Amino acid sequence: MPSFVKKRSSKAGLPPGTLVHIGEKKTDEVRMTLIEYNRDTWSEEEMTSVAAGASGRKSRPGRQSRTVSWLNIGGVHRLDFIEQVGKAFKLHPLVLEDIVNTDQRPKMDDYGEYLYVVLKMVYAGARPQEIHVEQVSLIQGRNFVLSFQENGSDVFGPVRNRLKTGKGRSRTLGADYLMYALVDAIVDHYFAILEVLGERIEKLENAIVANPRPALLGDIHDLKREMLLLRRCVWPVREVISGLQRAESRLIADDTRTYLKDVYDHAVQVVETLEIFREMVTEILDVYLSGISNRMTGVMTALTIIATIFMPLTFIVGVYGMNFQYMPELEWRWGYPMVLAGMAAIAAGMLVFIKKRKWLS
Amino acid sequence: MPSFVKKRSSKAGLPPGTLVHIGEKKTDEVRMTLIEYNRDTWSEEEMTSVAAGASGRKSRPGRQSRTVSWLNIGGVHRLDFIEQVGKAFKLHPLVLEDIVNTDQRPKMDDYGEYLYVVLKMVYAGARPQEIHVEQVSLIQGRNFVLSFQENGSDVFGPVRNRLKTGKGRSRTLGADYLMYALVDAIVDHYFAILEVLGERIEKLENAIVANPRPALLGDIHDLKREMLLLRRCVWPVREVISGLQRAESRLIADDTRTYLKDVYDHAVQVVETLEIFREMVTEILDVYLSGISNRMTGVMTALTIIATIFMPLTFIVGVYGMNFQYMPELEWRWGYPMVLAGMAAIAAGMLVFIKKRKWLS
Amino acid sequence: MPSFVKKRSSKAGLPPGTLVHIGEKKTDEVRMTLIEYNRDTWSEEEMTSVAAGASGRKSRPGRQSRTVSWLNIGGVHRLDFIEQVGKAFKLHPLVLEDIVNTDQRPKMDDYGEYLYVVLKMVYAGARPQEIHVEQVSLIQGRNFVLSFQENGSDVFGPVRNRLKTGKGRSRTLGADYLMYALVDAIVDHYFAILEVLGERIEKLENAIVANPRPALLGDIHDLKREMLLLRRCVWPVREVISGLQRAESRLIADDTRTYLKDVYDHAVQVVETLEIFREMVTEILDVYLSGISNRMTGVMTALTIIATIFMPLTFIVGVYGMNFQYMPELEWRWGYPMVLAGMAAIAAGMLVFIKKRKWLS
Amino acid sequence: MPSFVKKRSSKAGLPPGTLVHIGEKKTDEVRMTLIEYNRDTWSEEEMTSVAAGASGRKSRPGRQSRTVSWLNIGGVHRLDFIEQVGKAFKLHPLVLEDIVNTDQRPKMDDYGEYLYVVLKMVYAGARPQEIHVEQVSLIQGRNFVLSFQENGSDVFGPVRNRLKTGKGRSRTLGADYLMYALVDAIVDHYFAILEVLGERIEKLENAIVANPRPALLGDIHDLKREMLLLRRCVWPVREVISGLQRAESRLIADDTRTYLKDVYDHAVQVVETLEIFREMVTEILDVYLSGISNRMTGVMTALTIIATIFMPLTFIVGVYGMNFQYMPELEWRWGYPMVLAGMAAIAAGMLVFIKKRKWLS
Amino acid sequence: MPSFVKKRSSKAGLPPGTLVHIGEKKTDEVRMTLIEYNRDTWSEEEMTSVAAGASGRKSRPGRQSRTVSWLNIGGVHRLDFIEQVGKAFKLHPLVLEDIVNTDQRPKMDDYGEYLYVVLKMVYAGARPQEIHVEQVSLIQGRNFVLSFQENGSDVFGPVRNRLKTGKGRSRTLGADYLMYALVDAIVDHYFAILEVLGERIEKLENAIVANPRPALLGDIHDLKREMLLLRRCVWPVREVISGLQRAESRLIADDTRTYLKDVYDHAVQVVETLEIFREMVTEILDVYLSGISNRMTGVMTALTIIATIFMPLTFIVGVYGMNFQYMPELEWRWGYPMVLAGMAAIAAGMLVFIKKRKWLS
Repeated sequence: MPSFVKKRSSKAGLPPGTLVHIGEKKTDEVRMTLIEYNRDTWSEEEMTSVAAGASGRKSRPGRQSRTVSWLNIGGVHRLDFIEQVGKAFKLHPLVLEDIVNTDQRPKMDDYGEYLYVVLKMVYAGARPQEIHVEQVSLIQGRNFVLSFQENGSDVFGPVRNRLKTGKGRSRTLGADYLMYALVDAIVDHYFAILEVLGERIEKLENAIVANPRPALLGDIHDLKREMLLLRRCVWPVREVISGLQRAESRLIADDTRTYLKDVYDHAVQVVETLEIFREMVTEILDVYLSGISNRMTGVMTALTIIATIFMPLTFIVGVYGMNFQYMPELEWRWGYPMVLAGMAAIAAGMLVFIKKRKWLS
Repeated sequence: MPSFVKKRSSKAGLPPGTLVHIGEKKTDEVRMTLIEYNRDTWSEEEMTSVAAGASGRKSRPGRQSRTVSWLNIGGVHRLDFIEQVGKAFKLHPLVLEDIVNTDQRPKMDDYGEYLYVVLKMVYAGARPQEIHVEQVSLIQGRNFVLSFQENGSDVFGPVRNRLKTGKGRSRTLGADYLMYALVDAIVDHYFAILEVLGERIEKLENAIVANPRPALLGDIHDLKREMLLLRRCVWPVREVISGLQRAESRLIADDTRTYLKDVYDHAVQVVETLEIFREMVTEILDVYLSGISNRMTGVMTALTIIATIFMPLTFIVGVYGMNFQYMPELEWRWGYPMVLAGMAAIAAGMLVFIKKRKWLS
Repeated sequence: MPSFVKKRSSKAGLPPGTLVHIGEKKTDEVRMTLIEYNRDTWSEEEMTSVAAGASGRKSRPGRQSRTVSWLNIGGVHRLDFIEQVGKAFKLHPLVLEDIVNTDQRPKMDDYGEYLYVVLKMVYAGARPQEIHVEQVSLIQGRNFVLSFQENGSDVFGPVRNRLKTGKGRSRTLGADYLMYALVDAIVDHYFAILEVLGERIEKLENAIVANPRPALLGDIHDLKREMLLLRRCVWPVREVISGLQRAESRLIADDTRTYLKDVYDHAVQVVETLEIFREMVTEILDVYLSGISNRMTGVMTALTIIATIFMPLTFIVGVYGMNFQYMPELEWRWGYPMVLAGMAAIAAGMLVFIKKRKWLS
Repeated sequence: MPSFVKKRSSKAGLPPGTLVHIGEKKTDEVRMTLIEYNRDTWSEEEMTSVAAGASGRKSRPGRQSRTVSWLNIGGVHRLDFIEQVGKAFKLHPLVLEDIVNTDQRPKMDDYGEYLYVVLKMVYAGARPQEIHVEQVSLIQGRNFVLSFQENGSDVFGPVRNRLKTGKGRSRTLGADYLMYALVDAIVDHYFAILEVLGERIEKLENAIVANPRPALLGDIHDLKREMLLLRRCVWPVREVISGLQRAESRLIADDTRTYLKDVYDHAVQVVETLEIFREMVTEILDVYLSGISNRMTGVMTALTIIATIFMPLTFIVGVYGMNFQYMPELEWRWGYPMVLAGMAAIAAGMLVFIKKRKWLS
Repeated sequence: MPSFVKKRSSKAGLPPGTLVHIGEKKTDEVRMTLIEYNRDTWSEEEMTSVAAGASGRKSRPGRQSRTVSWLNIGGVHRLDFIEQVGKAFKLHPLVLEDIVNTDQRPKMDDYGEYLYVVLKMVYAGARPQEIHVEQVSLIQGRNFVLSFQENGSDVFGPVRNRLKTGKGRSRTLGADYLMYALVDAIVDHYFAILEVLGERIEKLENAIVANPRPALLGDIHDLKREMLLLRRCVWPVREVISGLQRAESRLIADDTRTYLKDVYDHAVQVVETLEIFREMVTEILDVYLSGISNRMTGVMTALTIIATIFMPLTFIVGVYGMNFQYMPELEWRWGYPMVLAGMAAIAAGMLVFIKKRKWLS
């Protein structure tokens, strides 16, 4: 499980705008891909070195009529790359600082010339309890989009393929539509995680209703913690998207706002579902605790019934085990059977009393 | 009980506006009914095939003076139907996508030319604990209303009959009044569910006050979960309706806004009643837990009383069961009765002590 | 205790504006009283039949200079009366529908020509735990006020008497002042209920601090439920009154707004006091549960002390009750006293041990 | 401890503006003090009778250049005094009604010609748990301030002395500065109460960590209740002061608004500290409950250990206490020591088992 | 641990603007440092006496072209120093009062000519559980910044060094950038504390999952309390910074607002992380309580199993320990083995019964 606080102390005292990579290094090689497209053309260039990236950038006259440039950088720990990109696109030092700090809260900043968005990509790992979180930074200018991932995985592959194979229209929609498509891809992943969580909650519930073993408590605890982590990633997404929607910027077309409204609705649904999951887990915990308490009551009731029946009987046999010389009952011919009968009667009476008290419900 | 998360993963990576049916297929045959009416005329056509529907649509010159067209589609899994309807009425691809995705949150979108509303129809099933949820999409244009249900049941029958038999006025009120009538019909159903829930809560409460059996805990748990589900359906309805009310659109007449205010009040009342139910169920849970705890205390008290009385006595009879050769008491003529009397005195003393401690309250 | 949900299902599917009486029929005979007054004159007419009421209405030329007409209707289940009133005063069908539906949430609607207010009158019944709730609908036009009660009780008697005997000024203030006076009378009644509740809470608290008997739990439960009911009635009153205050309507004079501010403050105080009561009852429940838990601990401690002392002793006497032939201690002259002394020492040691553990706090 | 609801029922049905004293009569004699000051002059007149007060008022031509009149009335149960003051200063009947009703919620009303403020003075009594609450009404006009206390104590003494001995400036600041000074004096008193509460909380915490005796539960309960009371007094103070700040009235100078911002900050701090106290007391309650639960667990563990060791042993000695004729072990020469040794081994084994289970942590 | 309420009572009754030092005296000597810089020059003067400070101030013609003066005062208990500074910079008496009152809530006040900000510097002490809180007051005018610390520690050293060694730009940004840098330095320190807390929480969690010893409860309690303290310091920081951002003052340049947005995001992140920590600690407490409850259940189950097996057996051996003369079984040749076998059968049966009840889960 990822920790909730990353080491930032290395950064204390440094001036704002200083690039310090905070977080784990998740990939060795940094991959950079430059895609340029418009209605009719499509070029895609894989750049594995800064030099290539630089040349790529050079070849990007870009700001012409309706050609959208999309530069995807997989890996943010190579500070020199980031700095060069920053220079090429004239990004504010604070933006660069935030890109390399992977302990960022999702947010949207409007820098006039471009919009800066930080989101958290969440995806399930190989084992069911594993949830990976990766920070994605998106920058959208008039005719370019920059996307920064922590590693070089192909999370935006579907978007790329859609655009590549897409008929005319979606390619003519500009950089703001691309921005939307990337945000949409990230939000879509949340639903996948919710499905995984939903199944685990259901399984856990069935297991606990069947038999509230203490071992299951650990699972509840894990679930709660993961949901806490997830909530931290997902909760601010709504304001990020509504920030994009409401941005007065001429960078976002009205058409795109309609699409953003759609992602916004998805984000709301994710947050609500998460809240419902939280209530369900709380509910499951209650069921567990009641189960434990029921078992305890059952155990104590059993103890009490045993004691209620046998303590008086043991006392009675103790009486006739005394060694007094003058105990007339001991010499009676039917003393022994009478005592046995008496004890049977007492036991029966006790059972009736217990029944009446409804201890055995 | 319906699950809280539907499989959406099939949709991940697809472009926005792609039609993918999400949810259960609730009917085999898709029924389409086209009703056209104005002050004086009323036509109703059952269309069981797309062709018929298409012809129906063709025959709908529609946008004339005050004739309202109402097309009801029962079943949203036939994507070809939905697409054709979408083309005919020039609906945004996102609207079509939302119509076939039955895992939608209730919402209202204003597309300028038409209003799009998603609501959840809730109705009790055959057995008391069964609550069915069905998504209903409503689209209102200047002189038409489209309604999409998940199955072909006749939930809007009363509205149809009212309009059919209605005297002049309600038929002259236009598409916005029809929209209102449909929303009102859905909200009215919530009250029926609340009645069912209210009765179950009352029964449960009586049962638990009478005898807090662990078995009832499952019922509480079920109730809570159903209310969680219901709340998810009902909670956003308020904003949907207030969205309609506040829509700047010229699609809603002022008269109709008065009616919408009325439905809004109903929605508020539904939400409030649901909240009160939640508090009542929480309260019932507390009563249950207190009952269990009382029983536990009663059981333990019984155990303690039994032990307090018999342990000392058993010890005493043990003493006189020892086999020492020199135990003068054993030879006393009145030893046995004296010991019996002594033990009776001790038991009495213990009982007095217990009484004083008020353990038997 | 009144139920939280009234049967509304009879209404499902009916068109809006249909009059259906929902709720209990609380009176047999419907009483109608028409009062007309201005600075100088006062007329009061008891109408026990519709005919008389109709004539009364006919005799109401009403809309003249500063004569205020106040029509009080005691009983809303006679739908024909309500309809006639509605026609005479040109009320919206939705208003009439709400008047006869006694399961209405308190609210204020501004219909332009008149203001419509629904409130809940709350009063204590004969027995302390009885709280009666009655719906009161008030309609205020330019120079008339209509008040609808569920039964014919004289709840507005004091207001009537004040006006009747009042010197000039209050009679010249118009229909809005009358409206205010009626709302004020209803809010004043809430304080009476709060006093009753406050006393019951105090009594309950004292009883529980003295002896936390399980029987008292039922009382806590009852209190909570009544407060839930009361809150539902009282909570929306604030917005009703602030709605009146803020109404842009020329129906409310500025003078009257000052008075409404006063009632508003009262309503806020009622709500706050209710919230404090809720916290106090929660607190009392905590005290109760702690009391129960203390008793439990006390009982268990007693059991443990008894067992700690007597189990070892019983074991020892058991040892010397064994029938081995070669048990040298049994033949010792001082064996018996020595064993007794040894057991006394053990018991004393155990008591010291217990003391040290502070079990007897 | 003061009760949370005062008898208001005596007032039900009376017209608004009727003077009815609600609350305790806290002083016998009503003291009235009239102070008049400006930059250069200072006059102070003690009026012990209405007549004197009346004459005092007569001698107050008051509304001249920058002379501020401050009339302090100690005691609000003399309705005739209040009425006379009301007439002299032309106060609204509702203001007078609120002054004599000491069960008022803190509030600020702007009557155009004057501002009306109700606050609660809180001060510690002789004993630590005693918190006294007194209602203070303040009325500020263009050049006068009226202050109404429930009793004649000299709570505003420091303010008076400061003004009396003050050099020029503060005396030239007008009635609004005096108003501020009085509000400030009241808010300052809250800090004193917070100090008392803080100390009690700390003491309680130490006592409970040392030994969670049930007796301390009563103290927690008392603390909670006092804080509930205090919160009711303090919570609305923020809006009162921010109401004064935001009042559009020309009665408050800009300079004074800066000072009001300062009191506002204090009020916020009081409220926050109170909230922190509430959390701390809740926390202390948790510690207490955990302590009790720990003791319970300890007691039960002791019981179980005793029983686990002695029950098997007692059974064994019981076996050899049976009177069968053919029990070969009984005749063995080493039977007795062997059994003793066996039992010692069993006891040791049990202890090892218990150790492993970590019951003795 | 610092106490939550500082002695303020000494201040009650004093006029506003009176300087009274509230809080601990944290340093003996008060250090004053005056730094003056612009693009090209840098002067730094250590002033250990008021005289020097005064001369320093004299030498500050200051309000020229773009020279920024930064006066740092380490220690606020020397009221004469504060007063002199106040006079020199024409500060409002209320500002001076707040500077020397270290029990201030973080806040931002706009005095037109200058902005006044109070923040809490938080830093970890030598031992892990120690959190020190120090109040820092910042005043920013057109070309000067005053910073007041409680002691003379060099918390702003990094900022000074950055400026000193900084190339042109940051030195040309003016007093508002310096203000931002100081606020940023304080907020950065919060992350260091969060890291410390995060580690402690993780350790505690592991310890409790391994073995829920009561001793750990104290640690949870300490953590909670520290977080309460921290929250009080951190919570209002967001409004302080957003206050600076939104200040209409011409004292803050637009450039600087971008930087302030960045600190704002950090403050939000600090608050959110703190909230997550609170939930985690609550969660840990739940795990602890469940662990305790599990142990209790385990203990009681053990007791019940022991009692269930041995009580019946002890009764049986008691039966054959009775001394009746006519007990035929006693004379049977195989009586003893038969009884032993019977008891073994009973014990086995009991164990089977227990197994079935799943008490040993």
